[in-house]
Amino acid sequence: MRGAVLYGPRDLRFEERDTPTIIKPTDAVIRISATCVCGSDLWPYRGINPVTQPTPMGHEYCGIVEEAGSAVTSIKPGQFVIGSFFASDNTCPNCQAGYQSSCQHAELVVTAQAPLLRVPLADGTLVATPDVPSDDMIPSLLALSDVMGTGWFAADAANVKPGSTVAVVGDGAVGLLCGLRQADAAERIIVMSRHESRQKLAREFGATDIVTERGDEGVARIKELTDGIGADSVLECVGTQESMMQAIRSTRPGGFVGYVGVPHEVELGGEELFYSHVHLHGGPAPVRRFLPELIDLAWNGKINPGKVFDLTLPLDQVAEGYRAMDERRAIKALLRP
Amino acid sequence: MRGAVLYGPRDLRFEERDTPTIIKPTDAVIRISATCVCGSDLWPYRGINPVTQPTPMGHEYCGIVEEAGSAVTSIKPGQFVIGSFFASDNTCPNCQAGYQSSCQHAELVVTAQAPLLRVPLADGTLVATPDVPSDDMIPSLLALSDVMGTGWFAADAANVKPGSTVAVVGDGAVGLLCGLRQADAAERIIVMSRHESRQKLAREFGATDIVTERGDEGVARIKELTDGIGADSVLECVGTQESMMQAIRSTRPGGFVGYVGVPHEVELGGEELFYSHVHLHGGPAPVRRFLPELIDLAWNGKINPGKVFDLTLPLDQVAEGYRAMDERRAIKALLRP
Repeated sequence: MRGAVLYGPRDLRFEERDTPTIIKPTDAVIRISATCVCGSDLWPYRGINPVTQPTPMGHEYCGIVEEAGSAVTSIKPGQFVIGSFFASDNTCPNCQAGYQSSCQHAELVVTAQAPLLRVPLADGTLVATPDVPSDDMIPSLLALSDVMGTGWFAADAANVKPGSTVAVVGDGAVGLLCGLRQADAAERIIVMSRHESRQKLAREFGATDIVTERGDEGVARIKELTDGIGADSVLECVGTQESMMQAIRSTRPGGFVGYVGVPHEVELGGEELFYSHVHLHGGPAPVRRFLPELIDLAWNGKINPGKVFDLTLPLDQVAEGYRAMDERRAIKALLRP
Repeated sequence: MRGAVLYGPRDLRFEERDTPTIIKPTDAVIRISATCVCGSDLWPYRGINPVTQPTPMGHEYCGIVEEAGSAVTSIKPGQFVIGSFFASDNTCPNCQAGYQSSCQHAELVVTAQAPLLRVPLADGTLVATPDVPSDDMIPSLLALSDVMGTGWFAADAANVKPGSTVAVVGDGAVGLLCGLRQADAAERIIVMSRHESRQKLAREFGATDIVTERGDEGVARIKELTDGIGADSVLECVGTQESMMQAIRSTRPGGFVGYVGVPHEVELGGEELFYSHVHLHGGPAPVRRFLPELIDLAWNGKINPGKVFDLTLPLDQVAEGYRAMDERRAIKALLRP
């Protein structure tokens, strides 16, 4: 089969790769219905994370079970399934505590931009939908695999509650989707964005206010909108020093920062954090925790996170998907094998 | 009157100072029944925090109201009161949220090692006891002013619950007193201490296990005691880089770090924090939030935090109190005017 392989900065090739097979009895192989390019794929694509060897890419996926290992009991060939970028056994103490992305047997799933994918720990990782979905439902189901699940976790980590004032730092797919959870609960959702198309989508997803300023000016604007106090909950969906500090400084004393942007050279000064009085929680989203609930919501049309995909390409044009996102011509590119 | 003044490293003098008076109508002046030396006083005493000018010292206090400003309505002369190191109005949004140490009108109270003390925002800061206490109750009431209130906040910030496994980093007065809150609630309280007298007191205050190792070895020992997972709640009561990392690394994914040690040159790497999956919360303790409950518990003999004072001196020997704590001959020195 052919799949996406990153060779170096902006050198993404669609080329022959080994066809995945069952290696352990707990594995499954799935035939990908759709995959996509993640904002975090752009870090190595842009050379910010070094690429030391040709690296297969992709960690968002949904599709039909092609083959299940002999020890797999909860899913079977023919089912449509969704999984997360961290395979997890879903039974260890960390999984039981709801932190499947810190599973004691966690394995990264990072070869999903291809027609077939091996998923380890299939029983603990994959969740089947009630039936094989219609084609138009697939974008929303694919979004659950990472971006929607990650936005959901950010809101959970930031303790978003009815009546909360929420600020979102980052207008990538995750930041935009955060609104979907909050729309039910939060009184006010302030999204920080300078891009018109993203502002529009943010409003569709529930934003009540848009702040275009960044850094200290962005913080000042959030304070202005919150009687000088700061937001109750701030969702950090970027992962830079600036975005982290913007999130912490935009939060009221005793408020909550939920951070899901993978940090790149972020250092938090202990003293500022101490006097900020914020709660800080985040990390790689334990998407598996939320999958049953999210599948239910998407299946019944209560959320439609698939709207975040503004570019659809055949899988063999995956390189164009990366280019479009790198150049910010697209928010998120969906790929169909 | 005479009071404590720090001139430079290990140069603490008991000398003539201005007698405090009512400056604003919201002030009160109290006659100190007892004050004490705090672990955080040792930072400037040891020259780790620079002392640029002669600095009056002391932020823990209880005593009899001598005079109340014309706008003060909730306390009156003759009452025995306790306050915190942060004066607060107790009415602003941050106070209402329970973060009185981030009060929008907060003022530090830092001249308490003296016979008389001016307390700003008296209505929002001071809490009266049901009656003037007997002399033997005073140490426990004084402890509420900071160390007990701070230990209580650490446990609150770290979400200590019935059945929790708790680890405490730091065997100073705050670390030792953390046990008092947990004794009711936690299943297991692991205190990290290498000093026999402090281990003994930790056990009196509720510790079930003592770990003598520090740094990575301390973390490994906590993991050993918690089935390899880490503690549910870790209370950081020191404020160094080593103690902060020890706390974060000793916590299970999804667990809680409550940190109350004032950070000194602490930098938290974003990536390690992200993958640790811990909840992080702390800061200067909003002692005022807990004072009514703590006064009730101490007044009725349900907690006896005064046991943390293992040295009592007349106030004019305050310099010996600093020396004894600096040389670790004393855990905490109480001073009587």
